Formats: sequence, structure tokens, C-alpha cells
Amino acid sequence: MIITLTTDFGLSDPFVGIMKGVILGIAPEARLVDISHEVRSYDVAEGAFLVENTYRYFPEGTVHIVVVDPGVGSARRPIVSVLNHQIFVGPDNGVLSPVLQNEVYHITNQNLFLSTVSKTFHGRDIFAPVAANIAHGMPINLVGPRIMDFMRVPLPLPRSHGDKLLGRVLRIDKFGNIITNFRRRDLGPNFTIRVEGLPITRLCANFSEAEPGEFFAVEGSTGYIELALNQGSAADRLSVECGAEIEVESGSANH
Amino acid sequence: MIITLTTDFGLSDPFVGIMKGVILGIAPEARLVDISHEVRSYDVAEGAFLVENTYRYFPEGTVHIVVVDPGVGSARRPIVSVLNHQIFVGPDNGVLSPVLQNEVYHITNQNLFLSTVSKTFHGRDIFAPVAANIAHGMPINLVGPRIMDFMRVPLPLPRSHGDKLLGRVLRIDKFGNIITNFRRRDLGPNFTIRVEGLPITRLCANFSEAEPGEFFAVEGSTGYIELALNQGSAADRLSVECGAEIEVESGSANH
Amino acid sequence: MIITLTTDFGLSDPFVGIMKGVILGIAPEARLVDISHEVRSYDVAEGAFLVENTYRYFPEGTVHIVVVDPGVGSARRPIVSVLNHQIFVGPDNGVLSPVLQNEVYHITNQNLFLSTVSKTFHGRDIFAPVAANIAHGMPINLVGPRIMDFMRVPLPLPRSHGDKLLGRVLRIDKFGNIITNFRRRDLGPNFTIRVEGLPITRLCANFSEAEPGEFFAVEGSTGYIELALNQGSAADRLSVECGAEIEVESGSANH
Repeated sequence: MIITLTTDFGLSDPFVGIMKGVILGIAPEARLVDISHEVRSYDVAEGAFLVENTYRYFPEGTVHIVVVDPGVGSARRPIVSVLNHQIFVGPDNGVLSPVLQNEVYHITNQNLFLSTVSKTFHGRDIFAPVAANIAHGMPINLVGPRIMDFMRVPLPLPRSHGDKLLGRVLRIDKFGNIITNFRRRDLGPNFTIRVEGLPITRLCANFSEAEPGEFFAVEGSTGYIELALNQGSAADRLSVECGAEIEVESGSANH
Repeated sequence: MIITLTTDFGLSDPFVGIMKGVILGIAPEARLVDISHEVRSYDVAEGAFLVENTYRYFPEGTVHIVVVDPGVGSARRPIVSVLNHQIFVGPDNGVLSPVLQNEVYHITNQNLFLSTVSKTFHGRDIFAPVAANIAHGMPINLVGPRIMDFMRVPLPLPRSHGDKLLGRVLRIDKFGNIITNFRRRDLGPNFTIRVEGLPITRLCANFSEAEPGEFFAVEGSTGYIELALNQGSAADRLSVECGAEIEVESGSANH
Repeated sequence: MIITLTTDFGLSDPFVGIMKGVILGIAPEARLVDISHEVRSYDVAEGAFLVENTYRYFPEGTVHIVVVDPGVGSARRPIVSVLNHQIFVGPDNGVLSPVLQNEVYHITNQNLFLSTVSKTFHGRDIFAPVAANIAHGMPINLVGPRIMDFMRVPLPLPRSHGDKLLGRVLRIDKFGNIITNFRRRDLGPNFTIRVEGLPITRLCANFSEAEPGEFFAVEGSTGYIELALNQGSAADRLSVECGAEIEVESGSANH
């Protein structure tokens, strides 16, 4: 059984390795896959983005641990969600928003926790052992009661403003590609995307189709429109950061 | 059987991947877990800190490879230590200090090494194959003779100075939390911790209990007292680095 | 069966985790080993260097996925190569140069691909599933026809220039060691290596033999000559970057 890990713990500290030790002590046969541990510290929305765009590439029965948890040790609840035969374990703070539908459990069964539960590292003390028990075959409803009042924070959608569509930068990837929250259908046959004053009017099929130095749009592997530069970092060149606003108009720009 | 890896090799170079190739060639069934490869280059004390705070979360029989090894290829000895049914493999330079008690072996059995041993990469040529053989079931005493004169460098403890207790920053974690070498018992019911001139008098149970912008102390997941900031980096804000001195006085500060 | 991954995807984005999900869905028994995901973006030569210096430490039958792929989605071909009972999967852009000899296949069998193939992430859609099928036992020739006209870009060799030998910096490692393309045999009994104006005349057996602050040469673990500093970063101190030119003369420098 596969267990994935998505956190904001980084890879310098031993936090992730410790969680894996706890997991393998309970479920020695588990296969562990790191999604990312470089979520910006406390950035619940970034964690949710990774969850949304990753889980469907894993086989049924995979258990996904997601720990971006600024409220660790406070009243926020630990939860388990089931969606499309995949299981998600993490805090009830919105980070699991994309995968919360109707089967959500509040983790209350303390028999599953490490014998001492700290106030600062529930990844180790609660989420890892609960996920490992589930991966090892424990029925999910043993974690605690079902709940309906979980916290869902939807990803921001583009919104109309006059004849424009206003969107956002969801993420900058390692290559400097600017991932927006527009979809292909939002662009129409002719469009002008404006980002930091720069008009972009070309949609390329891949990253190497454009000329060197030419900014262009491309449908990225997540299905979102990305703004890119052939073999260069569009984000660095435009000084764009995560969260920045982007405009789309129909028709080509005339300047 | 589980093998963990803790090194200062980083993740950009292929060093860690090569060690894993060597291990899986000898022990195909081994489960590999990375603790950290971002130990500061040559920082034996940081390696020892990671060993001390990690191994107890792994099941019995786990083999821990620890390679922070500025003296690679010199006369420093390769060793194996056994403690609490866990096995540790690394250089005899202090990095294994927290887990050296009475069962320590000098690795001398060259039959276990790669056929050519370099002077610069014993992680690949000695430590990986020795650890893999042990994980694969080889009796530990086949690595070489037991020794008593191994190198132990204790972690620095707080010391009294007049009516104050002087301690140290052991580590800064990814969130900017300042891990000190104080324990809860060192603080007493009322205390003032002084770090870079700033007095801290509040002990919180978790990271989100304090107000935004308020510095506070918290008992961290390692059992050490940490100095922290709610959703901010205490280390950045105070410009504190690893090794810096910290004072504790009884009673609340009057300024 | 082992599958290794070498990419320029970084570890912050979920690209590598997604590839692993695809692999484990097809070959649940596969053992996954990361070589490096920190190849400089689009740097095919760096990817080739890692391939050359890594694969021989893995057991026979290992499948190596190598994705440094600036031309993803264009006409460049996906290929599989077999050498010394190891299998390599990646784009035909030179990144597999060190392991292309006579058994090379053009991947054309679309039944092996994910059901939808993007134009921007063939690591997920083509290379991961093809590698997983091979690791799971599929005969290699089912990927597509053998080809002879694959792209090979040799690593740069040192060249003579008068009585000097001119070489290159192939790589800077995490410790700041400068990996050159010279071999031990290129140096002779007495030599002067000049790098950024500095003459280096001493060959040490290991990193701790030299005095602190002394630059020296050492035969590195890859078999290449490295320029180093005892417990310091030679590359930082000399401001040397990847690709820089290095000269070797016979005899000791007289200044």
C-alpha cells in the first residue's frame, strides 16, 4: 500500500524521516512517496493546490498524508477524508479542501496515536500512525465519527470584471513557468493576457515552439494555462510572484 | 529491514543515489529512509544532533548510516555501534556520540567493502556495503573487533553562571524556530530567557497560542525548549544563528 | 526491480511524486531511487554527467529514467537504451549519450502511454509508464523499433595546446570541490594546474591531508581530478563556475 507525504517541513530537518520511521514501525510493507516538503511554511492554499493536482495519478487505496498545519496543538481537528477510493489524512484547516466531499471523519481514537502526543508535531504523533494503520488494513471508520462541518476553502476562480476576466498566479514552478488559474476555455480563439503590463497573445503547444525570449501561454500539465519563456524563467523576467493578478481580454492586443 | 541515511552530501550530487544503488545490490529487500542530507558540510555536531533525536522513532533492527566525515581517507576509523537494538554505521569522529555506549566495533573486514576503495567516498565504498550486509542478516561482529576507545563528543549542556543559566542555540529549523539546549525543568515556574537582548517570559503550549508578532518559548517535539514566533521566523527576526549564547534567569524580566 | 530517476524537475513541485505514482500503479513492486532532481533546468550535459557516473553502482536490470528535456512535446524522440544489462529511458537529445551504444529503441508504442499525453510532461505521460512496464517484465523491444541515428554528444575531453593541456570544469559539488575533466594520467609526476590564475601543484590522497587554506588536487570518487580545499569551498574561494577553462603544464610552477 502506498503512503504519500506532502508537508511544509523541508528536507533539512529530520521531521519527514521521523514520520517515515513511525509509519514503517506500524506498516512495514508501506511504500512511501514524497510529493513535496517545500510547501511555503504555513501556506495551506499551496498545500491544497498540490493535493488537487497530484492524487489522481496514484492507484486506488493510496493514503495521502498532508501536513501544513499552523494551528498544530490548538483546537483545529485532525481529519480523514475518502474520495474516489483514495484516503487523505491531515488537519481540518482547508488544506484538504479539494478532496473533501461527503466521507470525512474526525480523528478522535487516541489508541492510534503515539503514546505521548506533543503539542507541536502531530505529523509524527497523530497523522503518521493513523495513516499507517489505515494503509495496514484498519477500517477507516475506526478513526472516529463522521463529520459534515469540515472546513473547505475553494481554490480562487477567475472572475469577470467588465469585458475582462481577472485571474491569479497560483504557483511558480521550478522552471519559472507562471501557473495561472485560467483554463483553456477561458481564453477563446483570440486573447490578450496581461501580466505586469506585458501583453501575451500566443498560445503554444509546448515549451520549445516559441522563439527564445518570446513570452507565450501554454496549457500546462495540470490543465491550467501557464505563462512561459522558451528555456528561460518567465517569473524571474517579469518579477511575478504567487498571488499576482492577471487579466484576460478577448481579441489580440493592439500594442 | 530499514536503513536510514544521514549525511552532509546534499541532494544535487549523485552521492546519496549511488549509496542506495550499492545497498540495494547487496540487500534488495532493504527499505531506505532519508533523514537529512543537508547537514552543514563537515558539521559533525549537527550530525550527532540528528542521530540523537531521530533513531528512537524507528523499529528495532533498523540500521542507521551517518556520514559526516571531514577525515575521510585519513586514519579515522569506520565503526559500528549497537544501542537499544538499533545499529549505527559511520566514522569514529564524534558524529555517533549519542549512541556510543559499550557495544562498538571497528570495521576492518575488507571483504565487505567495494572491490576498489576510494580515499574520498567511504559512504559508497565502506559504510553502504557494511550497513547493507548487516541489514541483510550478517552477524555484526563480523565487521571487526570490539573497541573501547571510540570518540565521544557530548552535546553541550547549559551551565550555571552566578544566578543565571547559560545555554546555546543547537539548531534553527525550517520554520525559523530556535532550538535551545534548555529543557522544561531548566526554566522553573517564572523565567526570563534573553536572546540577542530580547527578554522572553511566556511559555506557550503550541505555536498558535501566542499573538502574531509575539516571541515565546515552547517545549518542542525533541523535548528541547524552542524560541518561536506565531507564523513567523524567530531566527530571522532576531538574526540568531546556530551556536549563539542564550541566558535564563528565574523570575520575570522587569523591562 | 529498481527504477532510478534523474531530472531537472526540482523537489518543490509535485512532478517527481506524480511520476512515482504512475510507476507504482503499473509496477507496484518497483523500488524507486532518486539520483538527483536538481540538474540545472534544461542542462542536458549535466544530466549526461550524472548518468555516466552513477549507473554502474546499480545492480543489473535496473531501469534508469533520465528526463532533462527542453524539447518536450516537439519532434525529439523518446528512446530506450540497453547497456551492460542496464536500461535507460529518456529523450533523444544527448542526455543519454554515455550509455548509447548499439541497442537503442525509438519509443512509439502508444499503448504504453497514459491515456492522454500532454505536450509538456512526458516524464509523467511516456517515460514513467514505459519504464514501469519494462521493470514489470515487458520485453524491451515492445517499446518500438531499433534505431541507429540517435543523438550522441560526447563529454568534453582535454585537448593539447602547445605544451599545455586545456580542460574544463565539469561540475561543482556540494562541498565546493571543482570536478575537472582531467584524469590522473593527464597530470604526470609533476604538474601545475592553473585555475583562475592560481597554480596548484600538490596531489593529495584525500581531503584532510592538506593544510587548512591550501588548494590541492585529488583524484575524486568519479575518477576525475578535483580541485579542493580542506574543509572549505574551493569553488567559492576561486569564484569558479561550471564550464570554466583549466590549464595543466608539466613540472612545478616557479611562482
